[in-house]
Amino acid sequence: MTEKIVKYHSSSVKILIDKGLVNNTWSFLDPNFHYVVITDTNLTKHYGKLLSSIPNLESILAIKPGEKAKSIEVYEKIITSLNKLAINRDTILIAFGGGVICELGGFVASTYLDGINYLLIPTTLVAQIDTAIGGHCTLNVGDEAIIGQYYHPLMIIVDPLVLKTLPLEEFNNGIITTIKYAIVKDAKLYEELLASPVKQDSENLEDIITRCLNIKLLLTLKDEYNLKEQQILSLGKRYLEVILRLANNKLPYYNALALGIYYELDNLLLRDSLKEIFNLYNIVNDFVKWNIDYPKYLFKNKKDTQITVKKVVIDKIGRAKLALEEICR
Amino acid sequence: MTEKIVKYHSSSVKILIDKGLVNNTWSFLDPNFHYVVITDTNLTKHYGKLLSSIPNLESILAIKPGEKAKSIEVYEKIITSLNKLAINRDTILIAFGGGVICELGGFVASTYLDGINYLLIPTTLVAQIDTAIGGHCTLNVGDEAIIGQYYHPLMIIVDPLVLKTLPLEEFNNGIITTIKYAIVKDAKLYEELLASPVKQDSENLEDIITRCLNIKLLLTLKDEYNLKEQQILSLGKRYLEVILRLANNKLPYYNALALGIYYELDNLLLRDSLKEIFNLYNIVNDFVKWNIDYPKYLFKNKKDTQITVKKVVIDKIGRAKLALEEICR
Repeated sequence: MTEKIVKYHSSSVKILIDKGLVNNTWSFLDPNFHYVVITDTNLTKHYGKLLSSIPNLESILAIKPGEKAKSIEVYEKIITSLNKLAINRDTILIAFGGGVICELGGFVASTYLDGINYLLIPTTLVAQIDTAIGGHCTLNVGDEAIIGQYYHPLMIIVDPLVLKTLPLEEFNNGIITTIKYAIVKDAKLYEELLASPVKQDSENLEDIITRCLNIKLLLTLKDEYNLKEQQILSLGKRYLEVILRLANNKLPYYNALALGIYYELDNLLLRDSLKEIFNLYNIVNDFVKWNIDYPKYLFKNKKDTQITVKKVVIDKIGRAKLALEEICR
Repeated sequence: MTEKIVKYHSSSVKILIDKGLVNNTWSFLDPNFHYVVITDTNLTKHYGKLLSSIPNLESILAIKPGEKAKSIEVYEKIITSLNKLAINRDTILIAFGGGVICELGGFVASTYLDGINYLLIPTTLVAQIDTAIGGHCTLNVGDEAIIGQYYHPLMIIVDPLVLKTLPLEEFNNGIITTIKYAIVKDAKLYEELLASPVKQDSENLEDIITRCLNIKLLLTLKDEYNLKEQQILSLGKRYLEVILRLANNKLPYYNALALGIYYELDNLLLRDSLKEIFNLYNIVNDFVKWNIDYPKYLFKNKKDTQITVKKVVIDKIGRAKLALEEICR
C-alpha cells in the first residue's frame, strides 16, 4: 500500500493507494466517528451492500448519475437531507463515486454547518488521478462550473480494483487524462503508454495511477489555487468547448479532449506522435473532419478584432510551459 | 477616522470607521478595479443615486429586503446575474446593507469563480458591530442557517451616519446586541449605557460602535471559527428560538433576545439590573408572560429524559464563561 500525507497551505490530506482497499473491513475508517455516504444510483447497484457495511453509517444518499447532478438543485436536496437526518459536525461525509460525486460531495462538506469533514473514494480513473486531488469542488450553473471553491478532504482512498467494472467510455476518459499528464510532465510515462497499452485489467494500472496522481499532487502543491503552474493541465481545453459545441455534445469527452490536445499543439512532429498514441488507444476517429479554423471560434464578442488567450506550449513531450497568444481575425 | 488592519488566520481585513465615509467620493475604493453592488430595494430608494456614482461600476443588483433573501434561490439568482454580466475575478463585489446582505454577499463572493474579493458596507447597527465582523457568511434552508462558511472581506466600511435613517425596530436590534456585548465583556460600557441612553442621533454613537465592534473583533481573532471563546456571544440565544416559536415570530427580534438573555441568567440580582436597562431602552414589555419553564422546551427528542446544553454563565456584568448544564425532565 502507498500512503502519503500531503500538506497543502490550507490543510493536510492523507492518501491511500492499494488494490482491494474498498472492501467490507473499512479498515481506514475511524470507528469513533459516524458516516454518511453520497453516491449515485449506478454505484448503489454494484456497491449498495458493501456501503451498507460501513461502521456507524447514518445514511446512504444516492443521487441520479450524470453531470447534471452537479447542480444547485441537487446540492440543496442533499443539504436538506443531511439536516433532516440531524447530521452534525461529528459525522464524516464519504463521497463515493466519479468526478461529479467527488466535487458535489466536497462542496456539500465545505458549506454544511460551516464545513464538516469528508473523505473521497473516487471510483473512476479520471477521479482517481485528477478530480479527487487538489480540493477543488465546483457546481454548475447551466453547463458552466461557475460556483466553486477549494476544500480538501481528510483522506482520499484510491483502489484500482474498482476500475475493473468501469464502462469503456469512462475508462477512456481516464486514458486521455493519463496521456495528457505524460505530454505535459512525464516523457518516460509517454514512452511506456506507447510501448504497452494500459487496459482496465493491466497489471501496471496501479503504478500508472500512482504516477499520474503524483503529477497532479505536485502541481496542486506548487499552485494550490490554480493560478499558475497547475494551468498546464488545461492542455486541450482551449478547443474542447468548441469541439463539444460543434458536435452538439455527441462526441465522447475523451475523443473531444484528444482532438483539443492535438490541435492545440503547433509542432507537427508532435502531432504525428500523438496520432500514433491516439490510434493505439482508439480514442480519436476523425482527424480530418476536425481540422478546422479553431482560433475564429475563440472570439466571443463580435466587435473584437484581436484577443489574447492563454495557451499551453509543448516544446517536447514531457515539457510544458504557459504562454499568452494574440489572435487576430 | 479609525483605521485597523486585522490579521485573521485565513486573511487580513481592513476596517475603516468614520462619520460620512459613505459619500460620493468613494475615496476608499481603488479606481483600478471594477465593482458590482449587492443591496436591497429599500436601500436603493435612499442610496440608489449615491451607489450609481461608484467608480467603474458594473451593476447594482438589488434584491427584496428581508430575512427570506438569505436563501439558496436568491443566491442562485445572483450567481446567474454575475455570470451574465461576465463579472470576473478582477471585479470586487460590494455588499451594501444589513446583516442579510452582508452574509449573502459574503457567501456569493466566497463561491463565485472559486472566490472573488468583496467589501462590506454594513448599514444597520447589528451589521456594523456584529454580522460584518468575523467573516461568517450563511444561507438559510427553511428558517435555519444550515449552510455557511468563513470568508473575510478585503475591507469593512463603518459609517455611523447611515444609521440615522434606520427604522427604530432595526436600531433596537442593535441596542440589545450592544447591551449583550456589555454584559459579557464590558462592565464600563454597561454603566455608560445605563447612565446616558444611546439614541440614533447620539453624539457618542460612533464611540459605542467602535467599542462593540472591538469586542467582536477580539473574540473572532481569538476564536475565528466560533468553537470556543466566541460562543459567549450566544448569550440569550438558548431560549430565543423557543420564544420566537411560542410568539409565532410576532415578537420583535430585540424583544425576544432581551427576554432570552434575561431568562438565561440564574442570578436574580443581575436580572433586576437587566430589567432596569431594558426598561430604560423600552425593549421588553412583558416579563410576566414570558416567565415560563424554558428548560422543558429544549428537549427535541421525546425519548430523552436528560440532555446536556451549552450555557453562558455571567458571574457579574462584564464577565462571562461557558459551561455545560445537565437538564432533566
